[in-house]
Amino acid sequence: MLTGQRSWKFNNKPVIVSTGTTGGPFEAEGNISKDIDLLHNDLYMGEDSFEKAHKILLEKAGQKAIEKAGISKEQIQFYLAGDLINQITPTSFSAKTLGIPYLGLFGACSTSMEGLALSAYLINSQGADYILTGASSHNAAVEKQFRYPTEYGGQKPPTAQWTVTGAGTALLSHSGDGPVVTSATIGKVIDLGLNDPFNMGGAMAPAAVDTIEAHFSDLGVDASYYDLIITGDLGQIGQQVSLDLLKQHGVQMEESKYVDCGLTIYNKDQQVNAGASGAGCSAVVTYGHFLNRMKKGEFNRILVVATGALLSPLTTQQKESIPCIAHAVSIEAGGDRQ
Amino acid sequence: MLTGQRSWKFNNKPVIVSTGTTGGPFEAEGNISKDIDLLHNDLYMGEDSFEKAHKILLEKAGQKAIEKAGISKEQIQFYLAGDLINQITPTSFSAKTLGIPYLGLFGACSTSMEGLALSAYLINSQGADYILTGASSHNAAVEKQFRYPTEYGGQKPPTAQWTVTGAGTALLSHSGDGPVVTSATIGKVIDLGLNDPFNMGGAMAPAAVDTIEAHFSDLGVDASYYDLIITGDLGQIGQQVSLDLLKQHGVQMEESKYVDCGLTIYNKDQQVNAGASGAGCSAVVTYGHFLNRMKKGEFNRILVVATGALLSPLTTQQKESIPCIAHAVSIEAGGDRQ
Repeated sequence: MLTGQRSWKFNNKPVIVSTGTTGGPFEAEGNISKDIDLLHNDLYMGEDSFEKAHKILLEKAGQKAIEKAGISKEQIQFYLAGDLINQITPTSFSAKTLGIPYLGLFGACSTSMEGLALSAYLINSQGADYILTGASSHNAAVEKQFRYPTEYGGQKPPTAQWTVTGAGTALLSHSGDGPVVTSATIGKVIDLGLNDPFNMGGAMAPAAVDTIEAHFSDLGVDASYYDLIITGDLGQIGQQVSLDLLKQHGVQMEESKYVDCGLTIYNKDQQVNAGASGAGCSAVVTYGHFLNRMKKGEFNRILVVATGALLSPLTTQQKESIPCIAHAVSIEAGGDRQ
Repeated sequence: MLTGQRSWKFNNKPVIVSTGTTGGPFEAEGNISKDIDLLHNDLYMGEDSFEKAHKILLEKAGQKAIEKAGISKEQIQFYLAGDLINQITPTSFSAKTLGIPYLGLFGACSTSMEGLALSAYLINSQGADYILTGASSHNAAVEKQFRYPTEYGGQKPPTAQWTVTGAGTALLSHSGDGPVVTSATIGKVIDLGLNDPFNMGGAMAPAAVDTIEAHFSDLGVDASYYDLIITGDLGQIGQQVSLDLLKQHGVQMEESKYVDCGLTIYNKDQQVNAGASGAGCSAVVTYGHFLNRMKKGEFNRILVVATGALLSPLTTQQKESIPCIAHAVSIEAGGDRQ
């Protein structure tokens, strides 16, 4: 149901009945490794290319969620997912393995919440009994495509971010035990003219702010409604820019409740410059780490604002600026609603 | 509302209040040029790259639909669209110009009906007052990315298809005058192991057949319910393969009502080998040609089955087969429902 300008309110409270998360060797050394269901100790994951390994990440994350929910994949009507690779082939090939009717999405690193927003909408309005949604990235596959093959050893400025190797999926239904999705706000493309592909956080910050403000306005809430407001992968620079912008716009925001997936996944000792990024980043950190903490009772209401930079290497070569977007989804602690 | 395994029935009958279509110089010489709102006589369309021209195609098609509906773009809540270019940048940049909250889709040449299915769902369930949806392709931008720059003059086998330069958009609402969307069936990824990127029609045919059969089963109808069953871009080979498969599966289908957008857009004199393809193909031909004919009263019920080949140049290089998908949407003649 449309609420305000560009938000949906989910009165039937779709449930996230289970999640599945996977990661690579670098994530295994990170800050939230215990929240990741399956950690691969090799970037190839038994495949002969990074792109095929990328597919495995998402496929296994999906299978994990299905297994944890104790249902069969035949009970799931739709699979909504995407990634950063050209023509989102890792996701489409995972859809072939999973065999679930498939709606491919592209929202760069905002894909996780684009998928969760649409999935919650469909479940809320009786469009499906079960939906699987997810997003993923693979460091070596993404670096190869957007920058250089990692073997080349290209240097990066301190504003650059580290692409997560990982996938996160959520299985939604209209009943069951688990956190519930209560609303979503869809992002507009915001582009303030930045064109440095090594400072995505700075480019994406205004999109996060725009969506947060739209969410508060559409839902008639402010930051005090949430225990945590979690951005996708702004990193250090993007987070600071967004805090400055929120202050300039007069939006009250306690800094202690404003956290970023890109600053959560790795340890301080891991050299990732300004933080983590990648379509898998917000998916793994939200569906693994933050939902685990919610289930433990640490907090009850979170707003996840996944940010995406909608550029390509070609648009950068053609001197275009970076169009950015952010989609926000509100998740609240549920109870047994069966 | 879920109907059967993977279909939605739209009881509130979302209306296609207007459409917008654009094309290039080759389309201007084609069979349905009079159904295209805006024809460019230059492939660059005043831009300095084919990708920027690609964006213009979609942008102008969107603006045309908005103009014809006599509304302002601020009245539109969401824009659901996609294309074939890496990271769907032409679409994302068009979303920046249009300024409408944006959900990026990737379904290759099935994107048109992926967008129409989701848009109709959202309108049907009061998720928006107005939604703009569309898909596009640009021959030179797509050829450069998937095959060779056109200037190279690479030869193609007779099974190859010609990528359409064009965009088609539809503006949906819950009331108004125009054809109505009555149901949709979401495709599964079907891959029978074909791996020749110069025979997409043959690869996609089984996906079209799978979705047509699922649609008939979910909705409890057969081909006799429809006046036309329109596939996206199977071309000559794919159409014949799909007819053979339908026959093998015991599905009754009158050949005269089984038409293909890829065999409709160009004249017989235009050398396009097995037919047309591209994400813009089914969008331009459906939203332009077929809806115009429906409005003239030539037929009342059509099923549009847009097919997509979810490959990339990289998956072909890595010796993968071609995963294919098809989404079907039923459109029926409406009346004034205001």
